[in-house]
Amino acid sequence: MKTLIRDVTILTMNDEAPFVGDILIDEERITNIQAEVIADADEVIKATGMVAMPGLINAHQHTPMSLLRGFSDDLKLMDWLDKKMLPAEARMTPEDIYWGAKLSMAEMIRSGTTTFADMYIHMNEVAFAAEEVGMRASLTRGLVFLADDGGKRMGEALDLINRWTGKAEGRITTMLGPHSPYTCPKEPFKEVIALAEKLKMPIHTHLAETKEEVIKIREKYNQTPAEFLYNIGLFERTHALLAHSVHLNSHDIGLLKGMKGGVSHNPVSNLKLGCGIAPVLDMIEQGITVGLGTDGAGSATTVDMFEEIKAATWLQKLDHGDPTRLPASQALLMATRESAKLLNIHDEVGTLEIGKKADIILIDIRKPHLQPIHHIESLMAYSVNGGDVDTTIVNGKTLMRGRQLLTIDEEELFKQVSCRSKRITEGV
Amino acid sequence: MKTLIRDVTILTMNDEAPFVGDILIDEERITNIQAEVIADADEVIKATGMVAMPGLINAHQHTPMSLLRGFSDDLKLMDWLDKKMLPAEARMTPEDIYWGAKLSMAEMIRSGTTTFADMYIHMNEVAFAAEEVGMRASLTRGLVFLADDGGKRMGEALDLINRWTGKAEGRITTMLGPHSPYTCPKEPFKEVIALAEKLKMPIHTHLAETKEEVIKIREKYNQTPAEFLYNIGLFERTHALLAHSVHLNSHDIGLLKGMKGGVSHNPVSNLKLGCGIAPVLDMIEQGITVGLGTDGAGSATTVDMFEEIKAATWLQKLDHGDPTRLPASQALLMATRESAKLLNIHDEVGTLEIGKKADIILIDIRKPHLQPIHHIESLMAYSVNGGDVDTTIVNGKTLMRGRQLLTIDEEELFKQVSCRSKRITEGV
Repeated sequence: MKTLIRDVTILTMNDEAPFVGDILIDEERITNIQAEVIADADEVIKATGMVAMPGLINAHQHTPMSLLRGFSDDLKLMDWLDKKMLPAEARMTPEDIYWGAKLSMAEMIRSGTTTFADMYIHMNEVAFAAEEVGMRASLTRGLVFLADDGGKRMGEALDLINRWTGKAEGRITTMLGPHSPYTCPKEPFKEVIALAEKLKMPIHTHLAETKEEVIKIREKYNQTPAEFLYNIGLFERTHALLAHSVHLNSHDIGLLKGMKGGVSHNPVSNLKLGCGIAPVLDMIEQGITVGLGTDGAGSATTVDMFEEIKAATWLQKLDHGDPTRLPASQALLMATRESAKLLNIHDEVGTLEIGKKADIILIDIRKPHLQPIHHIESLMAYSVNGGDVDTTIVNGKTLMRGRQLLTIDEEELFKQVSCRSKRITEGV
Repeated sequence: MKTLIRDVTILTMNDEAPFVGDILIDEERITNIQAEVIADADEVIKATGMVAMPGLINAHQHTPMSLLRGFSDDLKLMDWLDKKMLPAEARMTPEDIYWGAKLSMAEMIRSGTTTFADMYIHMNEVAFAAEEVGMRASLTRGLVFLADDGGKRMGEALDLINRWTGKAEGRITTMLGPHSPYTCPKEPFKEVIALAEKLKMPIHTHLAETKEEVIKIREKYNQTPAEFLYNIGLFERTHALLAHSVHLNSHDIGLLKGMKGGVSHNPVSNLKLGCGIAPVLDMIEQGITVGLGTDGAGSATTVDMFEEIKAATWLQKLDHGDPTRLPASQALLMATRESAKLLNIHDEVGTLEIGKKADIILIDIRKPHLQPIHHIESLMAYSVNGGDVDTTIVNGKTLMRGRQLLTIDEEELFKQVSCRSKRITEGV
C-alpha cells in the first residue's frame, strides 16, 4: 500500500526550513520526501493549503482518566485526589478502563497526537484499545508500594511487558512504572531499577510535581526527590521518563544532567492544579531532554497537545519576563523529536525523514485564525488548536481523514463513556 | 422574523444552573427562554447535544493587527514594537485596515465572540466592516499626543463618534481613546477626560501593561500609572475601560475601587510578551469589574476568547498556588457579563434573559474532548476551544451556522489579506 501526500507545506522538525512538497508512504514508512515525488500510489492525498508535520508525542498520560474529565475541577489537590479521583477510580472495571482509554485516544487522534506514554492500572485494556485504534503507545503499569499486595501489581507489570512489548505491528512498547518517590519506598524502588536494568526496560515515574512532595521526601529521607532518585541510581542505570519535575533546584538539575531519557513537562496540568512552573529552560541548558505531555484529562481536562505547546512557551516567557524565551520552533520540537527521545523511539518517529515510520499529521490552515501566513512555526505553536488537524496517520495507516475518525465508532464511544462515567462517579 | 432554538443546554450566565430548554428570538431580542417554548417560528434550530451561552465579549482588541499575526513572535517587546509593528503599521492603508479588521471578525465569529472593543487607527473602516459583517462593537480611535498633529487624531475620534454611535441597528457604540499614561501627557489626557465627561462618552485606555511603563511614569511624574490616572480624575469622572493593569500594587487597586467601568484582563498577550500576571482576584475582591480581552493578534497570535478563559484561570491558580482560585464559572462570567459591564452595554447583552439582545452562541459538545458531561461550566471553561462553536448569533441574526460564515466570503478574505500582509511587511 503506497500513499502519496501531494503539495503540502512540510515541517520536518529536523532542522530544516518549511518547504512545499510531497511525501510518499510505503506500508508503514516514509520512503520519499522532497519538492516533487514522482511515484505510483494506491492513494493520493491532495493537501494543498495544509501543513504536514510529525504526529505529536504525548509523553505523559493516564488515558482512562478521561472518564473523569471535568468531574473535580477547581478543588484543592488533596480533595481532588482523595475525595474525587481515588473513590471514582476504585470503581473502575477493566471495561471502563478500555472505554476511557479509547475516549482519550479519540481526542488525541483528533488533535494530532499519534503516540502517547501511559501509566495506569488494567493496562492490558489500554493495550487492546491502542492495538485496535491504531495509535503508537508506550505502556506502563503504575506501581505503588504503600501496602503489601503479594506482588500483584508487579505481576501485572511483568505480564504487560511480556504480552505487549513490540506487539501491534511494533506500535506498542512498554516501561516499568514505579509511581513516584512518595509512593515507592527506597527498597522496592531500587528493586524495580535493578529489574529494569536486567530487562533493559525504561522507567516511567513522577518527580517533584508539588511542593508538598518535596517536603514529604525531605522529612523522610532528608533529600530532595531528585536526590532520592539519583542516590538509588535511577539516572545512571536506566533510561528514565520523569513526569513533571516542577520543583527542582539547580543542584537537582545538575543531578539529571547526562541522564538517559529526560523530563515530560506537563504545563496545563501544572497550571490547573496550581503546582508551579517547571524550570524547563534551565534543564534544556544543561542538555537534559525535555518533552511535552498532557497528564490525564482528570486534571488537565483536555489532552490536546497544541494547548501544551502554547502553555509551555507562555510559562517560560512569563517566568523569565522575556518574550524571546522558548520560541515557537523549540516548543514544537519538544512535542515531537524531544518527546520521542523520552519514549526511546526517536530512531523511528519524531521527525519526517526517509526511513522513519509514517506518523504524520496534516493541519488545515485555510482558516481565518491561521491567515495570513508569515511564519509557519509561529502559526503551528501559537494559533493552531487541536480542531485544526485534518488528517492523522500512524504507522502509515490513516486514523482520521477530513476530521472523520476511521477506526473508532464515536456514537458507540459516547454511549459507553456516558453510562460508565455516571456509574463510577455516582454519589462521589 | 422569529427563530426558535430547541432542546439546547442553556447556560444563561445569570446565576442559574444550566438547564435543557428552548430559546425564542423575535427580531433582535430574546423573547422567551424556558424548559419548553410553544411558539411559531420562521426558523427552528434543533440544537440537541449543544450548549447555548451568551456570545463572548472581547473587551480589548486591535482588530486590524490580525494582518501581522505571527509576523514578530518571540521578540523583545521593544523590538516587536519598534522594528516590526510600527513600520508595518505605517504602511497600512484604510483598505488594509478594513480587511485586517474583517479577518479578526471572521476569527471572532468562528470562535464564539459576538462583541468586541477595538482601539486603532482608520476606525471608520472597522465600523464599515462591523456594520457589514454583523458584529457588535465598541469602537475607539486611539489617541497619542507625543507630537502635535494639529488636532488630526482628535478630529478623527470625534468624527467616528458622530458618524457611528448607535448605528448599524444599534450594534455600534463608541469610546474616546487616550492611548496610555506613557503616550498621553497630563494636559491632553485631562482634556480628553473633560470631553468624555461632557459628551457622556466612556474612555478606553491602556494601564500598566509592562514594568517599563511603571518605571517611565515614576520618572516623569513620581507616580504609578494608576496614581497618574486617579489624580487626573479618570476613575471619578468617566466610565473607563482599562486594558491590562498587570503591574498594580495594592494601593493602586484601592484607587480603582468604586470606579465606573473596570479592567480588561488579556492573559494570553501578557504571557506571550512576558509582561506578568495581573492581580485579577485582588481587583475582584475590591469590587472592581474585571472582564476579558485578547489584545491584538499581533501579540496574542489568536483572538480566541476560549484561550483567554483558560489562561485567566490558569494564571490565578498558578499565582496563588491554589487550584480553587478563579473557578470555571467565574472565568466564564468575566468573558460575558463582566466584559459587557466594561463596554457599558450590560443592559443589552452579556447574559441570556428575556428582553436582552439575542447574542447567542451554540457549542457542539458531541466530541471526544467534550465527553462525558460532568459539569457543563468546566467543559466550557477548560475543554472547549473556539473551533467547537457551531452557531453564532448577533442581534438576532445568524452570522455562522454549522461552522459556515454567512456574512463573510472567506475565499475573497484570504486573497485580500495574503496580498496585503505581504505588501505591508515586505523588507520589514
